[in-house]
Amino acid sequence: MESSVGEAVVSHVIGVIGESTFSDAAHEALAEEVGRRLAGEGATLICGGLTGVMEAACRGAQRAGGRTIGVLPGTDRAEANPFVEIAVATGMGQARNTIIVLTADVVIAIGGGFGTLSEIALALRLGKPVVGLRTWEAARGERRAPLMVAASPEQAVREALRLAREGG
Amino acid sequence: MESSVGEAVVSHVIGVIGESTFSDAAHEALAEEVGRRLAGEGATLICGGLTGVMEAACRGAQRAGGRTIGVLPGTDRAEANPFVEIAVATGMGQARNTIIVLTADVVIAIGGGFGTLSEIALALRLGKPVVGLRTWEAARGERRAPLMVAASPEQAVREALRLAREGG
Amino acid sequence: MESSVGEAVVSHVIGVIGESTFSDAAHEALAEEVGRRLAGEGATLICGGLTGVMEAACRGAQRAGGRTIGVLPGTDRAEANPFVEIAVATGMGQARNTIIVLTADVVIAIGGGFGTLSEIALALRLGKPVVGLRTWEAARGERRAPLMVAASPEQAVREALRLAREGG
Amino acid sequence: MESSVGEAVVSHVIGVIGESTFSDAAHEALAEEVGRRLAGEGATLICGGLTGVMEAACRGAQRAGGRTIGVLPGTDRAEANPFVEIAVATGMGQARNTIIVLTADVVIAIGGGFGTLSEIALALRLGKPVVGLRTWEAARGERRAPLMVAASPEQAVREALRLAREGG
Repeated sequence: MESSVGEAVVSHVIGVIGESTFSDAAHEALAEEVGRRLAGEGATLICGGLTGVMEAACRGAQRAGGRTIGVLPGTDRAEANPFVEIAVATGMGQARNTIIVLTADVVIAIGGGFGTLSEIALALRLGKPVVGLRTWEAARGERRAPLMVAASPEQAVREALRLAREGG
Repeated sequence: MESSVGEAVVSHVIGVIGESTFSDAAHEALAEEVGRRLAGEGATLICGGLTGVMEAACRGAQRAGGRTIGVLPGTDRAEANPFVEIAVATGMGQARNTIIVLTADVVIAIGGGFGTLSEIALALRLGKPVVGLRTWEAARGERRAPLMVAASPEQAVREALRLAREGG
Repeated sequence: MESSVGEAVVSHVIGVIGESTFSDAAHEALAEEVGRRLAGEGATLICGGLTGVMEAACRGAQRAGGRTIGVLPGTDRAEANPFVEIAVATGMGQARNTIIVLTADVVIAIGGGFGTLSEIALALRLGKPVVGLRTWEAARGERRAPLMVAASPEQAVREALRLAREGG
Repeated sequence: MESSVGEAVVSHVIGVIGESTFSDAAHEALAEEVGRRLAGEGATLICGGLTGVMEAACRGAQRAGGRTIGVLPGTDRAEANPFVEIAVATGMGQARNTIIVLTADVVIAIGGGFGTLSEIALALRLGKPVVGLRTWEAARGERRAPLMVAASPEQAVREALRLAREGG
């Protein structure tokens, strides 16, 4: 799960994106399990640092000893949920989504509103693989957005790590 | 189409988003007609300033005497297509999409790849109405992204201006 | 003052930066005269779109028939001063200063607080010439920031246009 | 040096800014010592993630067991120097400086070119204290930029931590 770059040891970075308010109560447990499993694989979790899917995933990761990065829309680190270990204040609103996607090797999308759909598409635009769990599907005529649909957190994390290793 | 703000006269600003390489040859004429009709309505066109749908729409608008703004991903105004009247160099890559959406009153999406899908979703996230012409549809379970589907450039521009007036 | 790029005619773009609240009442007249003279030379004025030096310069330019662009820190075009003809809403706070500097050929700084000093230095960092009128001077040991100090709005505009022509 | 926020333990975050190419060979040792001392105080170091002062400070911090964050201008984490533990790819060029300043509690400036001057001024604009070590001084008429000038890395780190504690 880790590779040596210079003197530093760098783990894979997986983005977790999703709704800030749960549209389905089941999403909270899914997000938390994704976070926990990412930590178990030694991956670093990066997300938008706020509530809902972001907070549940961070909680799962942090309780399992994993590293969590929150890239915040606002100007104050204190805006981060309490399970963000490294809070980055951008002051750039939704434009901060670009930073999450660029920094991640692979993105896992869970549930989500339009912001999540936007990040999924942005990841695909920037060539980052996306694994989806109960999230958006999109099509234009015959063309379908090449989202990898996972049936469970276990599968989502397994596929995300596989894709990260291939990409690296 | 115009309203007075302070001493300045401000027209509606309509975003035109879409593919930089035409996936269907018919999209070029559609984009150009959208641009031409926007200019005919006195609207300002804002787009990403590059090729494909962006260039065709700017060409249509400029030839009809309309104003065109190109918000560029790179650091050099010279990157704009020749039909951009006001080029803004952001140096922010895809994060510049946020600026297009925030500045527009309404967005018209034509054809398009993942970048276009991302901008559609971003517009919906930020509360800007979206009119689509041969573009993406997205759904999550029962939920459909509330895109207004237009059958022609004429309808797309008519609906976009109606929505802009309502929003203003 | 103008050169043909493709089918479009593009004028020089001059950034005007400075304090949003006047530290010296004389700065208002200076900024307004800079704006008026830029318009007289056919240049486009780009600024942060808010109050103080930005508003006075836009007022001078607009009353003389010139074009004014305001690159706003917030998310709403309505935040622009009434003399901004083309308002661009970035939602990026101070990061929008980069856009002003990248889009300008040359920057004129008038008076100003720390934000102005930051933009002066950013312009120098990005290779854009800076003309200063009653603004910051900076030095590190023997090294002085290569600001062109102007004694009057007339000289500031003349030098800015000369530098823009050389750069183009 | 640490305070409990929710369930997370958060250390002070100190920005280190400075030249990417050493203008004076002595600056390398100064930057490395600043990094080492910040780590010794339990502070997290945030910087632009590249070469020169950024790399020397990260090296000092990492070798002393401290945490280092690099907020990169480009789109690839691999652009970070080897002593960056957490690399954030922004793809926003110089606009990424805003993120460093917003995330830091206090900024230490060492040597530096125009980019450093720009970050110093941006920090002051955003209300973040700045400690300078052989860096820029700026004045506008009677007004001096309120930089805290330190005579040594030891003093710079001591003052930065004091200011961070006061600010928190």
